[in-house]
Amino acid sequence: MNSDKPAIPRGTQDFSPEVMIKRSFIIGQIKKVFEKSGFLPLETPAMENLSVLTGKYGEEGDQLLFRILNSGNFLENIGDDDLRSRNVKALAPRLSEKGLRYDLTVPFARYVAMNRNEIVFPFKRYQIQPVWRADRPQKGRYREFYQCDADIIGTNSLICEAEIIAIINEAFKGLGIKDFTIKINSRKVLEGMAGILGAGDRMNVFFTILDKLEKMGKEAVSREFISSGFGNDFVARLESMLDRAEVYQLNDMNEFLASSDTGKSGLDDLGRIMEYSRHLGADDRKTRFDFTLARGLSYYTGAIFEVNVSGVSIGSVGGGGRYDNLAGSFGLPGISGVGFSFGIDRLYDAMEQLSLFPAQERFSTRILITNFGDEPEIFALKVLSRFRNRGINAEIYPENDKIKKQLGYANKKGIPFVLFIGSDELKTGKFSLKDMISGQQEELTIDEALQKLLQGN
Amino acid sequence: MNSDKPAIPRGTQDFSPEVMIKRSFIIGQIKKVFEKSGFLPLETPAMENLSVLTGKYGEEGDQLLFRILNSGNFLENIGDDDLRSRNVKALAPRLSEKGLRYDLTVPFARYVAMNRNEIVFPFKRYQIQPVWRADRPQKGRYREFYQCDADIIGTNSLICEAEIIAIINEAFKGLGIKDFTIKINSRKVLEGMAGILGAGDRMNVFFTILDKLEKMGKEAVSREFISSGFGNDFVARLESMLDRAEVYQLNDMNEFLASSDTGKSGLDDLGRIMEYSRHLGADDRKTRFDFTLARGLSYYTGAIFEVNVSGVSIGSVGGGGRYDNLAGSFGLPGISGVGFSFGIDRLYDAMEQLSLFPAQERFSTRILITNFGDEPEIFALKVLSRFRNRGINAEIYPENDKIKKQLGYANKKGIPFVLFIGSDELKTGKFSLKDMISGQQEELTIDEALQKLLQGN
Repeated sequence: MNSDKPAIPRGTQDFSPEVMIKRSFIIGQIKKVFEKSGFLPLETPAMENLSVLTGKYGEEGDQLLFRILNSGNFLENIGDDDLRSRNVKALAPRLSEKGLRYDLTVPFARYVAMNRNEIVFPFKRYQIQPVWRADRPQKGRYREFYQCDADIIGTNSLICEAEIIAIINEAFKGLGIKDFTIKINSRKVLEGMAGILGAGDRMNVFFTILDKLEKMGKEAVSREFISSGFGNDFVARLESMLDRAEVYQLNDMNEFLASSDTGKSGLDDLGRIMEYSRHLGADDRKTRFDFTLARGLSYYTGAIFEVNVSGVSIGSVGGGGRYDNLAGSFGLPGISGVGFSFGIDRLYDAMEQLSLFPAQERFSTRILITNFGDEPEIFALKVLSRFRNRGINAEIYPENDKIKKQLGYANKKGIPFVLFIGSDELKTGKFSLKDMISGQQEELTIDEALQKLLQGN
Repeated sequence: MNSDKPAIPRGTQDFSPEVMIKRSFIIGQIKKVFEKSGFLPLETPAMENLSVLTGKYGEEGDQLLFRILNSGNFLENIGDDDLRSRNVKALAPRLSEKGLRYDLTVPFARYVAMNRNEIVFPFKRYQIQPVWRADRPQKGRYREFYQCDADIIGTNSLICEAEIIAIINEAFKGLGIKDFTIKINSRKVLEGMAGILGAGDRMNVFFTILDKLEKMGKEAVSREFISSGFGNDFVARLESMLDRAEVYQLNDMNEFLASSDTGKSGLDDLGRIMEYSRHLGADDRKTRFDFTLARGLSYYTGAIFEVNVSGVSIGSVGGGGRYDNLAGSFGLPGISGVGFSFGIDRLYDAMEQLSLFPAQERFSTRILITNFGDEPEIFALKVLSRFRNRGINAEIYPENDKIKKQLGYANKKGIPFVLFIGSDELKTGKFSLKDMISGQQEELTIDEALQKLLQGN
């Protein structure tokens, strides 16, 4: 035990007050938009039974689950031979029956299946909670991070997709992010493409490799298609499409997908979604059809989205799509819905890079009242109470310390005003109010100081 | 794997939207008061190194830590004999190096020790996060529950204790809780008492047994003192004090503690705290000196508090006190402070019992717009956007379903107004607005409907 130099686990982070205030701003803005659109909050436990979690994220995902060691004698029912085998993959499930949630979608599906009789469908819920993954920590990738999901389930209506687009527009307006792009595509369009290009029987592999385009570039993706046995002809035709990806509009795709009913239905959906979202007030120019958008997850079946902030070198700050079978593995088949997830950490980085965080006066103390002990201290407490009662965040320096130290406290904490209450001031009824930014001082009555602070609020 | 009937781990709970809205109300009110008093938010990771957690909560606490199984081959470095021994107490630390946090105080102390050079002292932080304990689940006791802590550290000033009292008053005002009692005592008073009663050398045992008074009653406590060897004389004198506990005021104690400097200093503190808190606007009559208040934790050294809501059969809804050595075990001795923790779950139960939750219009949808497809649907989307732009939480029913189903949705979700937009209405420009509570309908233009909703907001 090395308790003299405490540390936090690799891949986790403390959120200092400074960071928390900015994170709260982001989360608060997004919540407001969710609630305005009729989404209701939900929270699920950090721990889920491993029977709920395993098998939902592929084999790789299962490896990344954090498992909770069973309480009591967790080795009791394991035989000597099993122990000696050290086959941890086989033993882990016997030592542990609970794990930390890996995302918010599976717990949501579990919740819906468990509460199917009480839930009012269509069900619109949002959920903002941390998730945990035993990934190798690296810059920007944490083992504990927040997800911020909104889902509408129990309806096929394309209005839901349009609502998601409108929500992104509205949330970004609140955050002050002006330049962004919502890329939109449909799994149906991709299915049509794959069929026409001759890969209709290997859809999921097609999605998975295409999904790497942005990260790896066209050549590397082509090589991976070849090495995965997709054939030269397929790759040549795909490449010629990718060359024109930037200019390909919905109409161009219509021609290409003429022979695919699924593909055409996907294009119809996208056209309808664009129209709906326009009526909902979303900015048309921010939404861009991109047939190369694939998304990694296998459960999408309709429209898919991804959002990027312009001018920052950060990946997508959110993504989502339509799925047709949310809770099938929990015995509740046929629940269709649309989900979207904001990446809070990346939004934070983007806003930091673009200097978009407003001065957070609501959170931080607006005025510090000095402490000179005795009578002034008593008077200062009463003044403090008056300021707070008027909704002004206010503090008294708790000790009768050197004035330099008291001002230093205000300075370091970024408190913009300091009110001096000493015995001389008590006699005259006039108190110095110091503006810590300009350095100027004014002699004011308490009422005047209060008015001045109220105007600034 | 029994995935058809999913369940959540014993002792954990989902917070449904209905519950979340009420919890958010409580947390929002408390946060507001914290921020008005200059406290800043902090969040720490759910996982801490076990070297940070163990040894801080006594042996019983260590047993209740949830341990995370190491990733990779967690059995690799454990010999066959050790495995066969099945000595889980010895093996657990070798299988797992991280655990879930057990409270917010130890992570806070760890944070302060790690960031001692950046923190501006006195440091006022609040923290609202879940904690985990592998306790036997029972009614009202969960394995995952929220704590809501505020601490002021780095100063001995008794203003801090008074601030805590003022915060409790202010928070309860915001929550609508009118009848409550803040019990206050000081560990110094208890030390003085123990000394005078002849138990000065067994202070901690004295605190621990006295702490059970409210739960077990006087006779059981007396028996436990006897069986712990405190002697008949001690118990007789303590009992005669306990008989008068209700009427014992600070002054009575002054007499009793005349020979104890520590005890008298504790009484002086309490007098000063009461005076300060009065000046800060706290209601005097809500704070009651109670020399039987002991608090379980060993680290308190000065004033201690506990809050009870009147008229409900729920234990204390919050507690705290002054400590003198927050971060000593992390190599940072001598950090004094005052902490207080609100019990969110118990406050929830108390407010539910007293019917204190306000109608939560801010969160829930105020108006549902019907969906009759085609032209009306397009028009409805535009209207929806107008309502939301004016800050009204609004929804459109996503599908052109039977009107009965659409109204049923509004009803079940508690949406107070439904606006009918059909093709006939489009021609006349007058739309039916139905008040779902009274059942009355009015024919209004969109502008008039908007005005009506705005007035209700």
